[in-house]
Amino acid sequence: LTQPPPWGINTNIRLTLPVVCFVWQIAMIILFGVFIRYDEESNTHWVETKAHNNITSDIENDFYFRYPSFQDVHVMIFVGFGFLMTFLKRYSFGAVGFNFLIASFGLQWALLMQGWFHSLDPQTGKIFIGIESLINADFCVAGCLIAYGAVLGKVSPVQLLVMTLFGVTLFAVEEYIILNLLHARDAGGSMVIHTFGGYYGLAISWVLYRPNLHQSKRMQGSVYHSDTFAMIGTLFLWMFWPSFNSAITDHGDGQHRAVINTYLGLASTVLTTVAISSLSQKTGKLDMVHIQNSTLAGGVALGTAAEFMISPYGALIVGFFCGIISTMGYIFISPFLEKTLKIQDTCGIHNLHAMPGVIGGIVGAITAAAASESVYGKQGLINTFDFTGDFKDRTVLTQGGYQAAGMCVSIVFGVVGGAIVGSILKLPIWGDPADENCFDDEVYWEVREPESIPPILEYNNHMIHKHQDL
Amino acid sequence: LTQPPPWGINTNIRLTLPVVCFVWQIAMIILFGVFIRYDEESNTHWVETKAHNNITSDIENDFYFRYPSFQDVHVMIFVGFGFLMTFLKRYSFGAVGFNFLIASFGLQWALLMQGWFHSLDPQTGKIFIGIESLINADFCVAGCLIAYGAVLGKVSPVQLLVMTLFGVTLFAVEEYIILNLLHARDAGGSMVIHTFGGYYGLAISWVLYRPNLHQSKRMQGSVYHSDTFAMIGTLFLWMFWPSFNSAITDHGDGQHRAVINTYLGLASTVLTTVAISSLSQKTGKLDMVHIQNSTLAGGVALGTAAEFMISPYGALIVGFFCGIISTMGYIFISPFLEKTLKIQDTCGIHNLHAMPGVIGGIVGAITAAAASESVYGKQGLINTFDFTGDFKDRTVLTQGGYQAAGMCVSIVFGVVGGAIVGSILKLPIWGDPADENCFDDEVYWEVREPESIPPILEYNNHMIHKHQDL
Amino acid sequence: LTQPPPWGINTNIRLTLPVVCFVWQIAMIILFGVFIRYDEESNTHWVETKAHNNITSDIENDFYFRYPSFQDVHVMIFVGFGFLMTFLKRYSFGAVGFNFLIASFGLQWALLMQGWFHSLDPQTGKIFIGIESLINADFCVAGCLIAYGAVLGKVSPVQLLVMTLFGVTLFAVEEYIILNLLHARDAGGSMVIHTFGGYYGLAISWVLYRPNLHQSKRMQGSVYHSDTFAMIGTLFLWMFWPSFNSAITDHGDGQHRAVINTYLGLASTVLTTVAISSLSQKTGKLDMVHIQNSTLAGGVALGTAAEFMISPYGALIVGFFCGIISTMGYIFISPFLEKTLKIQDTCGIHNLHAMPGVIGGIVGAITAAAASESVYGKQGLINTFDFTGDFKDRTVLTQGGYQAAGMCVSIVFGVVGGAIVGSILKLPIWGDPADENCFDDEVYWEVREPESIPPILEYNNHMIHKHQDL
Repeated sequence: LTQPPPWGINTNIRLTLPVVCFVWQIAMIILFGVFIRYDEESNTHWVETKAHNNITSDIENDFYFRYPSFQDVHVMIFVGFGFLMTFLKRYSFGAVGFNFLIASFGLQWALLMQGWFHSLDPQTGKIFIGIESLINADFCVAGCLIAYGAVLGKVSPVQLLVMTLFGVTLFAVEEYIILNLLHARDAGGSMVIHTFGGYYGLAISWVLYRPNLHQSKRMQGSVYHSDTFAMIGTLFLWMFWPSFNSAITDHGDGQHRAVINTYLGLASTVLTTVAISSLSQKTGKLDMVHIQNSTLAGGVALGTAAEFMISPYGALIVGFFCGIISTMGYIFISPFLEKTLKIQDTCGIHNLHAMPGVIGGIVGAITAAAASESVYGKQGLINTFDFTGDFKDRTVLTQGGYQAAGMCVSIVFGVVGGAIVGSILKLPIWGDPADENCFDDEVYWEVREPESIPPILEYNNHMIHKHQDL
Repeated sequence: LTQPPPWGINTNIRLTLPVVCFVWQIAMIILFGVFIRYDEESNTHWVETKAHNNITSDIENDFYFRYPSFQDVHVMIFVGFGFLMTFLKRYSFGAVGFNFLIASFGLQWALLMQGWFHSLDPQTGKIFIGIESLINADFCVAGCLIAYGAVLGKVSPVQLLVMTLFGVTLFAVEEYIILNLLHARDAGGSMVIHTFGGYYGLAISWVLYRPNLHQSKRMQGSVYHSDTFAMIGTLFLWMFWPSFNSAITDHGDGQHRAVINTYLGLASTVLTTVAISSLSQKTGKLDMVHIQNSTLAGGVALGTAAEFMISPYGALIVGFFCGIISTMGYIFISPFLEKTLKIQDTCGIHNLHAMPGVIGGIVGAITAAAASESVYGKQGLINTFDFTGDFKDRTVLTQGGYQAAGMCVSIVFGVVGGAIVGSILKLPIWGDPADENCFDDEVYWEVREPESIPPILEYNNHMIHKHQDL
Repeated sequence: LTQPPPWGINTNIRLTLPVVCFVWQIAMIILFGVFIRYDEESNTHWVETKAHNNITSDIENDFYFRYPSFQDVHVMIFVGFGFLMTFLKRYSFGAVGFNFLIASFGLQWALLMQGWFHSLDPQTGKIFIGIESLINADFCVAGCLIAYGAVLGKVSPVQLLVMTLFGVTLFAVEEYIILNLLHARDAGGSMVIHTFGGYYGLAISWVLYRPNLHQSKRMQGSVYHSDTFAMIGTLFLWMFWPSFNSAITDHGDGQHRAVINTYLGLASTVLTTVAISSLSQKTGKLDMVHIQNSTLAGGVALGTAAEFMISPYGALIVGFFCGIISTMGYIFISPFLEKTLKIQDTCGIHNLHAMPGVIGGIVGAITAAAASESVYGKQGLINTFDFTGDFKDRTVLTQGGYQAAGMCVSIVFGVVGGAIVGSILKLPIWGDPADENCFDDEVYWEVREPESIPPILEYNNHMIHKHQDL
């Protein structure tokens, strides 16, 4: 196993991977030393802040409003995304392990990038971080993990780190444009996270198109246990999505409402996903690919509107259509994308993130434009859309327009950014696997078992035939 | 694989499953549109509610009292129940996937049913929902998931949906009788959830008795990895049970105490389960069936009394006996039920839910009857048993009697309801599997692997013998 | 399977295991009856406590400050530690199941031991428990679960229970010396939990040295799926470590800051672990052993200093070095320990807990000694180091010295305590397995499968050769 790899292409990453990890981590330490400080709620001076602001109890610290949601989001990032991608028969280490690696790097870089764009203190030149910063960093990372789904099994960890470096950078910029300049609302990130992340990954996968990927066809697809592992990812994403969509919404009713809407929308999605999945097979059997992925589409599509007064049945309707569209995506659109547009999308992120993200952006724009003082109340409308400061005279119709504009920005950033980053990743220096070795953990991991199960079966069948020849 | 199934019975659900999913989901949307609204704490008018009620901080929103518990309960419903049932060697998809489906439908229907019975606003005709409603909906679903355990592997997903429709309906009625009319306390649902759900499932399984179930004996039982997967379910149920029993108890000491009692009771159960499991084998080996299930019995049995002042050692005692009784149930009672009473109980819910639920109801009745002002304090006694309004003159002894009456109501609803629903499920239109195809995911799922592992082994042995014949 | 075991040594635990479980659990019930009561926040008298202390809202109950962290810690104890140890190809039941057993016993005994030493009320002679007591009990158990890692697969469940009984006892004493007498700070337990637990396990493993352990070499190491299961443990430990290190820190900024520091330190650790792991192989492949374990070292090492103002880049630096040191430990130190010092450390707890724990203690001592009023603020410094009462005149330099002294106490307790307990466990009465049967679940568990996978493969190869001979 210490010989040069038999597949011609050099997947030796013994130099590049450690160098990238060390250099980038040292850069993080230096930049954190220069820029990052505790904010006033995570600082020992909190006791003075409390006195100064007449805060009577420690429970008013933002930590207690957001920490449970933060931990749920954290689980989604590491277990949710990680295990969702373990469905391939022989790529579980890469799925969970590389997800772990790039998320760990990405969240550090995100704290810096988001800090510079959103919360750099002009007086001190410092970025002050607290629990909400950690949630936002996890959110930013989610965009890159979504993109990973499109290229799963076809890239090296070094490429993934490069993809994450640029992905987080692009994310911080588009987020700044959408949330700050356009002043669009997108608490759960239908646009900022899912649309951007989806198109970013698809564009990269398009540039990295492998015409001979069929050579590793034996490694594509799942086995029984890998599908069960993937359900761990699915369920933790599904269960904690209410926390995701509510994690950074307004205290009080904002968080409360976002949870209710997401909870309901996701439940609705499950039923229509099952319905379409069953319809797609002659005998009505269900397909684990759909159950693992499309059941989540409702959560994606409520990322923008979950904090609005879309009302419970509105959430159900969004979930209803997303389950249908996402599952049909797996049945009809993914094969089309691969054959016609030459986009190989391992996990089907187009169906799980890109399309539902766009739907979410549209739902957000429409429901924002349709918001009214009679439903929201005067102060409720101001709070929900943050019509304060420079934006205090904005109407809901205008807001709807800016929401739609934000949608477009996220698509453009995803497609153009992904195309550029894809070109960088095409350079023959990153140690990516040959076509016939895609989707195989043995390329980048010490795998101790002598062989996987399927070959045994082939041997057996082979022998049985030979035997009969005797 | 697109041929009509070789087993005679038609398990094609390509018509029924999509139709049920679509029609029921559309019905949910319409009914939610008519009835369900955000409550005052999840509404943008919260800012006015706060001002009106002199609430000084958003942290007083019930969301922050209950959200962490809610998420834990949510995990129990989807990962806990789902993975607990993956122990069968070849029914993991059905266990996790159908659990996912029926819980997603059930929670919507539960919001409506529980709303109509418990919180329909007489003035507006609306049901106002908040975080506590979501928890209650999850609780209601738990009853049906328990029942699923008795019929695991023997029914079609359509039957499961029907079972859930009626199960949730029955649940809401019995819950209304027990909690509202009898004014019994049952925060963690020993009676309302576990006893009802247990007997509901057992009665259905009794009606659906399959005399030739031994024909699928090769698929019953576990393999090594499926037992490990099941432990994921066990542990998430076990760890989060304190949240389950405290999720809707009183703010403050009520939630606090329910957590402590459940935490302790469950710990005690583990030790006695291990003891009896070891005793049951000639060499003292442990049985995973017991560890996966009986360790949870203490949580079930504290569902009523966890919020009472049963004191820490009281919780330990309840757990102690539940571990013993539940494990002995698996060893002695389950075989008896199957042979004599013709009840085939795949997961042994009689040992995990029905019996411990009844114990919990009895413990609740006794501890309620024994409550005293000297232990609880005057106001504490009123708060704990909600001796207010119509019930302000009730004595603890009377309360104990009503607790016992509630116990009986839940048993009656479970047995009678289950028998009726079982009869409906016996109709030959639901696409359930033939006896020889029970416990096999291939009936309702696209399974990509050519064959499972054990046959390989048989081939091998077969060949070895043939070989020796040469 | 009911025959006496073929391996000569008697692993029949049918007498000892049930007796120990029953007797100890009954002892727990009696001692809880005598000593343990609800504290004022979990008692129905809370309504009076509130009035008496002018507490205006139930949300001020400590429950709401600590419950989310408690549940995360609980997950770490049962799923985190349990699944982390499932990496062996055929010891998943023992890993998860025995972990479950000893943690359930240990937390009860810990409530008593910690209660007697830390919170025995002198007037009533009672121990009053609340949510913080439950967290501390889980922490105490963690020390014993760490020690289990060193002897995984080589001991009987009875030995594990004995190890836990003494481990919890020693823990409570060293914790009392370190936290109360020396007044050292150690909220996340670098010293108290990890250093003690690590050396306790290593010393036991040293006494129980098995010169012929190579006889079970075929069972050591992992298979593909067992490594994936282990990643569940890794990730839940990693994700929830911020809760671990913040669970019992000061309300407000203390918890907030501990979370931020741990979150950052762990992220940094992942990158350097990957770097060193890749460097250690000729082609740069990654080793799951490192990813599963060393990625957690940063959390261990921040156990003491996470609540201090070490600043975000400080946390990154700690994580940076811990990833390197821990991974190198697996590569270089573990083989050395086994060959030269005769310490067989199944899970490599020396690299994951002992070394990083010591680093954490040193980091804590240095950062305490370097604390200044300019950084912390006057009141902040007093709050962080609890310079009140008898310790109100202590300087930070003195504090640093006492921190270092605490470090030494934990090492001494671990090594000496482990050596003594190891000697007790060496008695030939505990039913431990023979050398050739270590790491095999069949010794203590009913395993239903006829054989594991690898032998099939051998049959195949064997047959192929025979075939070719024909």
